Amino acid sequence: MGIKLYDLAGAEPNRRFSPFCWRIKMALAHQGLQFETIPWRFSDKPLIAQYKWERVPVLIDDGRAVVDSWTIANYLEDNYADRPALFGGGAGRALTRFYDQWTGAVLHAGMSRFVMLDICERLEPRDRDYFRTSREARFGMTLEAYCADREARLAAFRQSLEPLRQTLTAQPFLGGESPLYPDYIVFGGFQWARAVSPFVLLEAADPVNAWRERLLGAFGGFAREAPGYW
Amino acid sequence: MGIKLYDLAGAEPNRRFSPFCWRIKMALAHQGLQFETIPWRFSDKPLIAQYKWERVPVLIDDGRAVVDSWTIANYLEDNYADRPALFGGGAGRALTRFYDQWTGAVLHAGMSRFVMLDICERLEPRDRDYFRTSREARFGMTLEAYCADREARLAAFRQSLEPLRQTLTAQPFLGGESPLYPDYIVFGGFQWARAVSPFVLLEAADPVNAWRERLLGAFGGFAREAPGYW
Repeated sequence: MGIKLYDLAGAEPNRRFSPFCWRIKMALAHQGLQFETIPWRFSDKPLIAQYKWERVPVLIDDGRAVVDSWTIANYLEDNYADRPALFGGGAGRALTRFYDQWTGAVLHAGMSRFVMLDICERLEPRDRDYFRTSREARFGMTLEAYCADREARLAAFRQSLEPLRQTLTAQPFLGGESPLYPDYIVFGGFQWARAVSPFVLLEAADPVNAWRERLLGAFGGFAREAPGYW
Repeated sequence: MGIKLYDLAGAEPNRRFSPFCWRIKMALAHQGLQFETIPWRFSDKPLIAQYKWERVPVLIDDGRAVVDSWTIANYLEDNYADRPALFGGGAGRALTRFYDQWTGAVLHAGMSRFVMLDICERLEPRDRDYFRTSREARFGMTLEAYCADREARLAAFRQSLEPLRQTLTAQPFLGGESPLYPDYIVFGGFQWARAVSPFVLLEAADPVNAWRERLLGAFGGFAREAPGYW
């Protein structure tokens, strides 16, 4: 039966924008595992209700369901131990947690104010009301207000990437000479933005952008082939 | 001849406040290595000029000098490979870089506006003019202005620790079940603040504070025994 992944999609079935799905797709490619993705929309919650979960990614491996990106990454590392390592050992696995938390609290939170309105515009019509209503309640304002003044916010967003920038000036990947799962965690955020928004978040000469380009080109250009704006 | 470490000191020779020296002292304790510290002041640059360096830590191991905390940590890992690992393998070593950069760009930069004036007041009189002049030129204002309104800045500082807090809610140390060098990198920042300033930066119930307490108690309370305020 192989590996299947429920993967968040827009109105165009191939526009895949979940940062959490992207990290798993990159992990699967890293391990050289064949997989098939199933486009999934916010209104498709009934499709995954059997797994007692209501978000993606949901990975189905030979009929067994695994949910939550951190759990899936650990599952892949432990169950495909003969494949290239995602964490590079116990220390690497433990040290990956902070990358996950930094990505949520700083990278995704920062990007959110650039991409949320773009996401809404790229959803299937049946997803838009749910998305707008739930996000506007969370943010306490309209999506238009939340994503206003992007140009004015850009410098502070880029500044928040300074630890990433300095690290990627010292070495080509967060994992060192080659990427590890922390690279895919962070890269997933950039794929989120790229998939939905033409607003360019990085300067071309930024070492973070050079690293992003290396990952766009990895695994035969797997990430670059996906629909995206920059 | 053993291991000696030039270690930044205040007017009281035992008040040691360099965050970069603290990470190395914790690394030496982690490895179970005996070492002696040499109190060093900013005006003692001539004492380390022979090593073509003008900052501490400077580590002298059986007559061989190693400078810069990252280089020293790598030296210790490579030269005392029979001792408890600081990085836990090649992936761990590469993944440690981002902790170093985050600590500089976020933790130290944030703490700086809480502690700089306190540092100045705890220096030997011969160090104070140099410290005040060089820092005021860097910050573009007096130390008093730079460290004003600490109460008002506290919430944003604590918020900036959110990735650390979430990580340390999921596991006891950044390194997992036991500390690794990334723990000491971040902890060094907290020792910097503790050594010079009575201003309490963390709530007692903060998971970051619980982790700090665990490290204060590590190695027989080595870090807690050092002069400090909280």
